[in-house]
Amino acid sequence: MRRGLFITFEGQECAGKSTQVQLLTEWLESQGHSVLCTREPGGTALAEKIRNLLLDINEESICAESELLLFAASRAQHVRNLILPALAEGKTVLCDRFYDSTTAYQGAARGLPLKVINVLNDFCTADRKPDLTFLLDLTVQESRRRLQIRSHDIIDRMEAEKDSFFEKVRQGFLQIARQEPDRVKCIDATQDIQVIQKIIRTEVQNALSRD
Amino acid sequence: MRRGLFITFEGQECAGKSTQVQLLTEWLESQGHSVLCTREPGGTALAEKIRNLLLDINEESICAESELLLFAASRAQHVRNLILPALAEGKTVLCDRFYDSTTAYQGAARGLPLKVINVLNDFCTADRKPDLTFLLDLTVQESRRRLQIRSHDIIDRMEAEKDSFFEKVRQGFLQIARQEPDRVKCIDATQDIQVIQKIIRTEVQNALSRD
Repeated sequence: MRRGLFITFEGQECAGKSTQVQLLTEWLESQGHSVLCTREPGGTALAEKIRNLLLDINEESICAESELLLFAASRAQHVRNLILPALAEGKTVLCDRFYDSTTAYQGAARGLPLKVINVLNDFCTADRKPDLTFLLDLTVQESRRRLQIRSHDIIDRMEAEKDSFFEKVRQGFLQIARQEPDRVKCIDATQDIQVIQKIIRTEVQNALSRD
Repeated sequence: MRRGLFITFEGQECAGKSTQVQLLTEWLESQGHSVLCTREPGGTALAEKIRNLLLDINEESICAESELLLFAASRAQHVRNLILPALAEGKTVLCDRFYDSTTAYQGAARGLPLKVINVLNDFCTADRKPDLTFLLDLTVQESRRRLQIRSHDIIDRMEAEKDSFFEKVRQGFLQIARQEPDRVKCIDATQDIQVIQKIIRTEVQNALSRD
């Protein structure tokens, strides 16, 4: 059986990641592919419990180090219990956020040492990098504007951070895209949804034909 | 104000750690010291929630990597929100299990890479090593015998491991004691409780007078 393709989606809040995951899933399934859609933090029962600890705004203030390690614990579980088995079955796995979010949020924005983050990223993922990553890039102002429109949602602990924090997150993502251009495709997320989806499908089609 | 002394207690299940912590606390307080007693995993509200995820036997099977990272996340929170502030106030901190348990259980017994464990131990503790560590050493057979007597307790997930696992844990602890003899004092835990306590008080007295 052919090995499945592992595709991740990264970017600021409200960049349209889940919309694009959904559209890509429909297209891949219409082409006969078996698809697993998942997200981080979360993805398994235990990982979802860890997600709740991370996002609860009423929680005891979480130190940056503990936050990083909880994300890592959730990812280690998610990779071994869900992602790797699905890839081994030949499924295409689409994941809403993965370890680039850790590098951008906990590394670039919170300033935790990249040496530790890189050790953790390799350890959590059993060295299984995504085959393809779409970075949906948005300015902080546009992300904030969209978040306010989505006002029926409860603002969680991560979203309550300041603009300067999210500017560092954005720059962190853009730096990863510059460092790994073969894996990470940066897309202007202010474009029309269908235009973005077309770009994504072209890249996925290329990756599938290479595989 | 004088900086507080940080003392940890390590060893197998039923080695008598909590009894010795209690007796030492009473003695230190009778000498006018302010003492904080705590334990791992746990010690703060969030760390206790992580503890529950770790020890719950009905939980989704936790992979070894995620277990290590949850212990680390709990420790990072415990050190920064409880242990370091107490030491800064001049308190003596007694902790039932600390990072040597990670090296013994997740390193020596589960076989996770020591390179990662050492990076995590330094990162979680902000490089604040314990001043003194008491290893209460017990054979696996004796630990198991005592655990069966304490049968009203629910056997948790860690205690449900096999004897070969606990033999590796014991050897892991003994190796740390050999590598760091100045910090780690190995005590035969089959001795009388008061005899053990006397050895501990002598070492603590020495450390206090050196400080």
